[in-house]
Amino acid sequence: MKAFKVAIVGVTGAVGKEMLSILEERDFPVGMLLPLASARSRGKKVVFCGEEIPIQVLEEANFSGLDIVLMSAGAGVSRGYAPKAAEEGCIVIDNSSAFRLEEDIPLIVPEVNPQALSGYRRRNIIANPNCTTIISVLPLKPLHDYAKIHRVIAASYQAVSGAGAQAMKDLEFQVKNYMEGKNIAAESTGQSFAFNLIPRIDNVLDNMYTREEMKLVWETRKILNDTSLRITATCVRVPVFRSHSVAMTVETEKYVSRNKALELFEDFPGLEVQDDPVHGIYPMPLYTSGMDSCFVGRVREDISGHNSTNLWVVGDQLRKGAALNAIQIAELIANEKK
Amino acid sequence: MKAFKVAIVGVTGAVGKEMLSILEERDFPVGMLLPLASARSRGKKVVFCGEEIPIQVLEEANFSGLDIVLMSAGAGVSRGYAPKAAEEGCIVIDNSSAFRLEEDIPLIVPEVNPQALSGYRRRNIIANPNCTTIISVLPLKPLHDYAKIHRVIAASYQAVSGAGAQAMKDLEFQVKNYMEGKNIAAESTGQSFAFNLIPRIDNVLDNMYTREEMKLVWETRKILNDTSLRITATCVRVPVFRSHSVAMTVETEKYVSRNKALELFEDFPGLEVQDDPVHGIYPMPLYTSGMDSCFVGRVREDISGHNSTNLWVVGDQLRKGAALNAIQIAELIANEKK
Repeated sequence: MKAFKVAIVGVTGAVGKEMLSILEERDFPVGMLLPLASARSRGKKVVFCGEEIPIQVLEEANFSGLDIVLMSAGAGVSRGYAPKAAEEGCIVIDNSSAFRLEEDIPLIVPEVNPQALSGYRRRNIIANPNCTTIISVLPLKPLHDYAKIHRVIAASYQAVSGAGAQAMKDLEFQVKNYMEGKNIAAESTGQSFAFNLIPRIDNVLDNMYTREEMKLVWETRKILNDTSLRITATCVRVPVFRSHSVAMTVETEKYVSRNKALELFEDFPGLEVQDDPVHGIYPMPLYTSGMDSCFVGRVREDISGHNSTNLWVVGDQLRKGAALNAIQIAELIANEKK
Repeated sequence: MKAFKVAIVGVTGAVGKEMLSILEERDFPVGMLLPLASARSRGKKVVFCGEEIPIQVLEEANFSGLDIVLMSAGAGVSRGYAPKAAEEGCIVIDNSSAFRLEEDIPLIVPEVNPQALSGYRRRNIIANPNCTTIISVLPLKPLHDYAKIHRVIAASYQAVSGAGAQAMKDLEFQVKNYMEGKNIAAESTGQSFAFNLIPRIDNVLDNMYTREEMKLVWETRKILNDTSLRITATCVRVPVFRSHSVAMTVETEKYVSRNKALELFEDFPGLEVQDDPVHGIYPMPLYTSGMDSCFVGRVREDISGHNSTNLWVVGDQLRKGAALNAIQIAELIANEKK
């Protein structure tokens, strides 16, 4: 198998670190690894497959000769560096929102729409979807194929990891303050995560939805290749470290019984069913962290609707919601080149 | 004004304690207070209006001569003692689910359906609704009056106080364990609250809904006096101490603009609008604890629906969700007797 020269942009971030360990775990054929970060990380090293590799500063990096560039340093960095790397012939897998909605950029969840990868050579950029979208779209895909989804009503319960490594530290620090009888002060991220819920993630748009909520709308439509899908969402930050959860009501053209839905979910790759609530079996974010699968449970017919199904899906935001999905995309490319 | 002889059953519980302090705060005309609890509290005292009052054991209590009995010691205790107290001529305001759905028992949220109190003398028992229901029904009522609600899709984010005083201690203990690098073990309640979400509250019924979810369905219909209301819910425990939050999508017969909805909410008693998300103004449970009002925000037209509104409502579970609502009911009775 060909060995790939791989760069990770944002290697010191929560997602970048996860990318590093997933490349190693999954035995991705890495011939050379180039860890990139901002000037703040100059002189630091990462450990990959037992080897210490110095971090290089992104501004000074040379992309030429690299095969795959995994980017996770925010939309601004991606806008600046992804086209550059792509022009040099690298395939960029970008975890930011910068290119997700561009028509000639594939937006990929490997279990859901691998066929949409074709033509990625036009721009040499492939977009990794928003974390909540990736986790939500796993149960939506088999429901859509079987019963055609008309409408989705989603309420999310999103971990602080989605706000970055600093937010995870803030939650710890705030909880520690609380336990010591101090105020739960907002820290560097300016948000009070501990013992709180924040019903706003990302900017507020003209329609009074947040950008996070609209990402779920826009990206789900693109991934399921159905612009007629009606979707609404309320996205909420919760004091959980790294797994996102989503409660969804899914209206379909065709009737789907609970048993049929469970069967569809059991058969779908990347998804595991945890649905025996009588015996305490349902997905919980504390126990799904570090896992590759997403977990679905609380599946039941929506008693308020006609052909409508309720479900609860949970997945590790840093793994399937970000780093793992990006590396699964890289694997699709690697397999293509075998 | 007549002074009332008031008993609190379950005075050592999270809600019972709150009842005690709210009676004092609101200057309820208490002529005599009888604090009641289980035998475990024998010999203990409560402080009410600066006075130490010994707790009496419920099993040994004499209800005769009491005017109002506030009960919050679970459905089992209420089933045993409420009819007894009612027969003695006391007016029982019961915080449990024991009597809520009985046809001749009023189920009251004073801002919403005070008229339904009439006839309470038939049984001498008035039921206090489920906490999530009380908080949800405040914004639903003005929407229903203005635009006739057809359907409600709710996802709740419920504080541990709803699981009782012990659950609040468990959350603290589990968080402390975590900060000391120990396992987040389930404690006396058997549930891992810290940094986790639990998508099951109360028992699971035949339709795979939990009883908590069906309480929202059944009780909302009764309070809004509309059996045709279609309601679905997913109820989830979150690591928050004492305020519940609910994301709701509300489908109505008539169109409701965001501005009209905000106006309806602003005019409704017991409800405060916090809705300027661009500037960080939205209800958050950390800041609503200890408050009497419920807070509504993130109000917007549901882009997936026709005549459908999204909103986010937050309220203190122990106050408006339980103790305050019960004492507001007592105030309705006290005013009637003036």
